[in-house]
Amino acid sequence: MTSVHHPLTEEQIRREDELVQTVVASFDGAADDRLREIMQALVRHSHAFVRDVRLTEAEWSSAIAFLTACGHITDDRRQEFILLSDVLGLSMQTVAVNNEAYADATEATVFGPFFVGDAPLVETGGDIAFGSPGQPCWVEGTVRDTQGAPIAGARIEVWEADEDGFYDVQYTDDRVGGRAHLFADDDGGYAFWGLTPTPYPIPHDGPVGQMLEAVGRSPMRASHLHFMVAAEGARTLVTHIFVRGDELLTSDSVFGVKDSLILDFHEQPADAPTPDGRDLGGRTWSRTRFDIVLAPSDL
Amino acid sequence: MTSVHHPLTEEQIRREDELVQTVVASFDGAADDRLREIMQALVRHSHAFVRDVRLTEAEWSSAIAFLTACGHITDDRRQEFILLSDVLGLSMQTVAVNNEAYADATEATVFGPFFVGDAPLVETGGDIAFGSPGQPCWVEGTVRDTQGAPIAGARIEVWEADEDGFYDVQYTDDRVGGRAHLFADDDGGYAFWGLTPTPYPIPHDGPVGQMLEAVGRSPMRASHLHFMVAAEGARTLVTHIFVRGDELLTSDSVFGVKDSLILDFHEQPADAPTPDGRDLGGRTWSRTRFDIVLAPSDL
Repeated sequence: MTSVHHPLTEEQIRREDELVQTVVASFDGAADDRLREIMQALVRHSHAFVRDVRLTEAEWSSAIAFLTACGHITDDRRQEFILLSDVLGLSMQTVAVNNEAYADATEATVFGPFFVGDAPLVETGGDIAFGSPGQPCWVEGTVRDTQGAPIAGARIEVWEADEDGFYDVQYTDDRVGGRAHLFADDDGGYAFWGLTPTPYPIPHDGPVGQMLEAVGRSPMRASHLHFMVAAEGARTLVTHIFVRGDELLTSDSVFGVKDSLILDFHEQPADAPTPDGRDLGGRTWSRTRFDIVLAPSDL
Repeated sequence: MTSVHHPLTEEQIRREDELVQTVVASFDGAADDRLREIMQALVRHSHAFVRDVRLTEAEWSSAIAFLTACGHITDDRRQEFILLSDVLGLSMQTVAVNNEAYADATEATVFGPFFVGDAPLVETGGDIAFGSPGQPCWVEGTVRDTQGAPIAGARIEVWEADEDGFYDVQYTDDRVGGRAHLFADDDGGYAFWGLTPTPYPIPHDGPVGQMLEAVGRSPMRASHLHFMVAAEGARTLVTHIFVRGDELLTSDSVFGVKDSLILDFHEQPADAPTPDGRDLGGRTWSRTRFDIVLAPSDL
């Protein structure tokens, strides 16, 4: 599976070790303790990588060229370094590290680049699509703490792509659709009409896309709907819900899928009565339930 | 010295481990064995870094912003990613990995960005300064293999900064100075007039320079003279020689210094007779000896 590397002499190992120690020591004088810790760990892990794979000088040059290409495609609207972090699972690992498992608190996942702070308010049962194309989807659930107590008034932000795979902010016509905020009711309950999530690719016409192609990976994200849920005294939850049965669940390009976040989206025939009596004009629809548990903020 | 991190729960460790395994497995389908090996090792080491330091989301954002700034300052004349590799010791570690210790073969060091392929030819004892300012320095030595046999005809490229700290290619007037190639004689001997090496900083007006400043590190390189020595059947040697007594030897910004490459540069009074009878016009000069040993190419 991997290259066969010959055994190293003691002198060679000594030289490589000594270099690592010298570089680590060069950061000893950093006034900021945390910066020193991070830089010294970066040195140890990055040198271990170079030594483990016995990186050739040509490969080193390729890495420099790759980073340069990432830098040159990055602008105000395109962030190739975030994409790189995403497809290496580093964004998701950072989320994991900062949202530690706690009792039955709902798992977090990646924030993504498409959140907008001033999404419209909808009432319970309101429609967040605002005309964006897609199959209507009824989403309902509760927001509770890890003791099971409802969290009345929890602020719930939701956002998602339309059935063409685009978020509103990806269009140039200033439309607002597929995003809103709402508040949990006195029993912690919430409900809204959204769109049944559909898959879309991350931008893959740059160096990160070329890398994915070279290793046989897909740029597609599993179908999902974003949530951000905040309440006083609670750890803010940033997560998605995913659609059980989506064939992309096992190959999500940014590793955002967690088993606990995969929900049943029940397909409904066009003539099925809606939960709130809404007339969908003869369209099919789906429904799902997402019960949210927030960890305390003072972990 | 470092942040105190609290112990992790088994469930948290399981989640983080599982993510690493999922990301590693995503590269299983890479058709190129070596690419797969490199990417999977990159995932393991980079995730270990994030987990070890418990990288915060704000720190992750800072890292993205830093890489973006490196990308935006990089152009045809400025390569911030190479500087970053240099100041993290990764360039030097790559050199170490690719130039393994062998018997008494001379140690390699970083190539640097200032080599030019078509430097002028000089005869034995010729002057490579071509008028570049600095104190004259007589450099002599031999080129031998690890059995001690002279390597007649070895091609020796030498290049260095002038006393103002600039290589010829850093000027805009197309000058050629402080660089040449020459060939070892039938006994493996070589000699040339150059300039006593002087220190200079790496470019430090960008994000890498800001990082060095933040951690209290100097951008200065220890004084040095570059060599590249090639001969049929020998491993090409890319190295520097350094000046014993230079106070920058212990803080070289790119970690190029090796004890074995530090030489005595003997200061000579203005009236000291020169080795080849050259009249230096009343200037002081220096002299050093660098005996070179090349490893075989078929290691």
